[in-house]
Amino acid sequence: MILSRGLFIGRFQPFHLGHKACIDFALQEVNDLIIGVGSSQASFEAKNPFTGGERILMIKETLNADPKLDQRRILIVPISDINVHSLWTSHIKILVPTFEVVFANDQFTSLLFKETGVKVVNPPMIKRTVLSGSEIRRRIVHDIKWTRLVSPRTETIIKEINGVERIKRLHLCHC
Amino acid sequence: MILSRGLFIGRFQPFHLGHKACIDFALQEVNDLIIGVGSSQASFEAKNPFTGGERILMIKETLNADPKLDQRRILIVPISDINVHSLWTSHIKILVPTFEVVFANDQFTSLLFKETGVKVVNPPMIKRTVLSGSEIRRRIVHDIKWTRLVSPRTETIIKEINGVERIKRLHLCHC
Amino acid sequence: MILSRGLFIGRFQPFHLGHKACIDFALQEVNDLIIGVGSSQASFEAKNPFTGGERILMIKETLNADPKLDQRRILIVPISDINVHSLWTSHIKILVPTFEVVFANDQFTSLLFKETGVKVVNPPMIKRTVLSGSEIRRRIVHDIKWTRLVSPRTETIIKEINGVERIKRLHLCHC
Amino acid sequence: MILSRGLFIGRFQPFHLGHKACIDFALQEVNDLIIGVGSSQASFEAKNPFTGGERILMIKETLNADPKLDQRRILIVPISDINVHSLWTSHIKILVPTFEVVFANDQFTSLLFKETGVKVVNPPMIKRTVLSGSEIRRRIVHDIKWTRLVSPRTETIIKEINGVERIKRLHLCHC
Amino acid sequence: MILSRGLFIGRFQPFHLGHKACIDFALQEVNDLIIGVGSSQASFEAKNPFTGGERILMIKETLNADPKLDQRRILIVPISDINVHSLWTSHIKILVPTFEVVFANDQFTSLLFKETGVKVVNPPMIKRTVLSGSEIRRRIVHDIKWTRLVSPRTETIIKEINGVERIKRLHLCHC
Amino acid sequence: MILSRGLFIGRFQPFHLGHKACIDFALQEVNDLIIGVGSSQASFEAKNPFTGGERILMIKETLNADPKLDQRRILIVPISDINVHSLWTSHIKILVPTFEVVFANDQFTSLLFKETGVKVVNPPMIKRTVLSGSEIRRRIVHDIKWTRLVSPRTETIIKEINGVERIKRLHLCHC
Repeated sequence: MILSRGLFIGRFQPFHLGHKACIDFALQEVNDLIIGVGSSQASFEAKNPFTGGERILMIKETLNADPKLDQRRILIVPISDINVHSLWTSHIKILVPTFEVVFANDQFTSLLFKETGVKVVNPPMIKRTVLSGSEIRRRIVHDIKWTRLVSPRTETIIKEINGVERIKRLHLCHC
Repeated sequence: MILSRGLFIGRFQPFHLGHKACIDFALQEVNDLIIGVGSSQASFEAKNPFTGGERILMIKETLNADPKLDQRRILIVPISDINVHSLWTSHIKILVPTFEVVFANDQFTSLLFKETGVKVVNPPMIKRTVLSGSEIRRRIVHDIKWTRLVSPRTETIIKEINGVERIKRLHLCHC
Repeated sequence: MILSRGLFIGRFQPFHLGHKACIDFALQEVNDLIIGVGSSQASFEAKNPFTGGERILMIKETLNADPKLDQRRILIVPISDINVHSLWTSHIKILVPTFEVVFANDQFTSLLFKETGVKVVNPPMIKRTVLSGSEIRRRIVHDIKWTRLVSPRTETIIKEINGVERIKRLHLCHC
Repeated sequence: MILSRGLFIGRFQPFHLGHKACIDFALQEVNDLIIGVGSSQASFEAKNPFTGGERILMIKETLNADPKLDQRRILIVPISDINVHSLWTSHIKILVPTFEVVFANDQFTSLLFKETGVKVVNPPMIKRTVLSGSEIRRRIVHDIKWTRLVSPRTETIIKEINGVERIKRLHLCHC
Repeated sequence: MILSRGLFIGRFQPFHLGHKACIDFALQEVNDLIIGVGSSQASFEAKNPFTGGERILMIKETLNADPKLDQRRILIVPISDINVHSLWTSHIKILVPTFEVVFANDQFTSLLFKETGVKVVNPPMIKRTVLSGSEIRRRIVHDIKWTRLVSPRTETIIKEINGVERIKRLHLCHC
Repeated sequence: MILSRGLFIGRFQPFHLGHKACIDFALQEVNDLIIGVGSSQASFEAKNPFTGGERILMIKETLNADPKLDQRRILIVPISDINVHSLWTSHIKILVPTFEVVFANDQFTSLLFKETGVKVVNPPMIKRTVLSGSEIRRRIVHDIKWTRLVSPRTETIIKEINGVERIKRLHLCHC
């Protein structure tokens, strides 16, 4: 373990077991991990149903429930979008503590960070076809089993905030 | 302990032992505590020398160094300013998980949250004349002892980022 | 009549007789009615050809021409979009006087207001297939009769500002 | 009466009898009058205690209580500030119906509109030393008689929203 | 030559020989020419791969290489987008020196400037099917010859900043 | 001459002979010079009376009148302010072609660029007490001789746009 701090970025709509596996992977590579909650300002959209606060809670409670995880190594930071793409990496560098590596599977995130000389690692993705936010939202819309794809805590939070109903409605109004 | 989650808001320019005492106080009142880093977008100003990322790091590392603290109870969230005062509390409610009480000594924060019906508690302030961000910045500008007012980790971070020099320069250019 | 003040929201591109019928319906339910001109900042787009000022004028002059209407019961307020969906209802509550009920047929408006506990009423829609803004814009583009779908005052305003020409051009440049 | 429509701009913090006199003056010069509620986004500041919605209500109810006033001649429109001074008049021209004259006693408003070739009329100001928003706020802070300076409806609204308490608190927290 | 100053607006993604021909055309009509670099804030998008600074450099160096061109007649000004369409022409008038004519082939630019009474000239477009930004980007994505469509200086700049690789990647990530 | 491109930043309210001397100095150090017009969005304020377009014109025409200057070496670029100080240097790097050195006498500009590792050179300032924007504006307000402090072209432009009157008025309305 050489690198001291890494950044893992996702939208987490919702936070699922694939994300959890990425975090476990990253924690083998770095001492400390910043989890950046992307598009944190977005919510109540078909693709972004949950608010920043709701997504932070899904991550926090899921990680809290893992007894092997040293919470001191984790920092969860919401990251809002900015209009100007070329300022996005600078925007992030100001919002979070310094980091030496970015974990991301998103092509665009990789492109922008590589452009500024930051090392980018693509964590291995398990069961990619089902462990994805869009697939989980699709299943919720069509009443297909989805709860196995998220942690028990995420499932509880989604149900407490009427998230199933919200996703179905947002699907209908095409927003 | 009745309330499940509280919010403690400050600018933390820098994070000092008075802030730490407020957190210890709040953790006796609530199960979980959200620490909101206010004016998170501001930095390189005389009154706001440190970036959001630098301040998050001061808080995180200081709390990590406290062996009695259960890290699962803590969430640190940057909160940027918005132009429209009357939207500020709504803005915060979206950014962070739900909370039942706000801990704040700032009059304006109290006013706005009370207006929306949220309970506000003023944590007791110890050694208020010296344990304040403006006093610490003043001492740094005039080479007066200040390190006893912050945690060892905050002191180290300020020195690593040349924070003493930065505060002196920002004082000179009146920005 | 129990409720004292209601809010009716629309984009009014342009203001047509279906909107007028909704206003007449709402005025049977509430003492005072706020007419919120949504997306007030938008104009010179294919879907939003008219400026906020032009749409306010269509509404004001159409209502002024109705001798049975007590103007003291009406308030017309432009409401600009904000990027953050979850702040939209808070944004509106600050812009307009307090209200107890929202009149809206738009799914998204209903969803967001219900989420905050505000009562939403769907006014009956008459001749929905022709009394719609998009249908009127489509007819204008293709030189199909449209003037019967709006009030005489709206028709005059559209013609005075060369609105027919504007809609045709915006249709061509796909903006 | 030659001019068809005028614009009267103020911040109305709060709406007082001097403003009402300006409106009466302007209605002798123009057919229709737009009342622009400036800095409509501002509130909960010492200089701008009231929200846009609260100020609109003060104006609307005061004018409704005047039996001689033909409500069809009046339009109340909130106008938010924009950062770029030189775009402010263009911003207003889009937000409101066309107008031929501006009524304003504020030097800056006069300067900007004259620069764009719009006619500016300074309405006569009666009892200027007491009929001013800052004087009324000062009196409220110091418990000096102020209710005679506003209409009965404005007084009622200020009291219903705890405006006296709000102004005193905002004065204390210097925001 | 009657008109003293003209404005030629384009996005220049990238700057190509068709743009150069438009500039040569415009310089026969006006004394001085402002070259407005539209959407200057956009970059790292499939349709807008290059930053404002990169596009300014392509234009400047291409024009510098033309010995017949009097550089005193040319001004290159980046113009960022603004959200509100109806303020766009006012926004431009503040950013650049006064002008009497706009050179543009884009329908939307023509529509908005004509609306404000500014003369719009459509410069003749040569080899339109190949001399277009989207065609050049398409060719770069598919490794089809493109260098003859731009000036030698533009070609060099694109290669120095790894523009070919950037365009291919942006095409893949659909951003 | 080792460095290929430099950046000289100023607000140029108005552009005066001290600025011209800085440009002449910088052109001895670098091949090409970018002149960044700071706070380009500001105008009609006591400290920022002139629009971005007016200031660009003062610079362009003054430099055009210098027969010894090779215009191919000069690029004038407006730079708007951004709210977030720590993003300002990143913002500039996107707006303009790459540069190796910054010429600035302003403390804040120096501080921010040095923080990002960019070389900053303070050009010698001649007759600093009179060759300053604030001094020239002060003289204009008080009808003290000022025209010798600017180039003949700048003087003409200020007079053509009624700049003397504008500065006096802005001084009076304290905006």
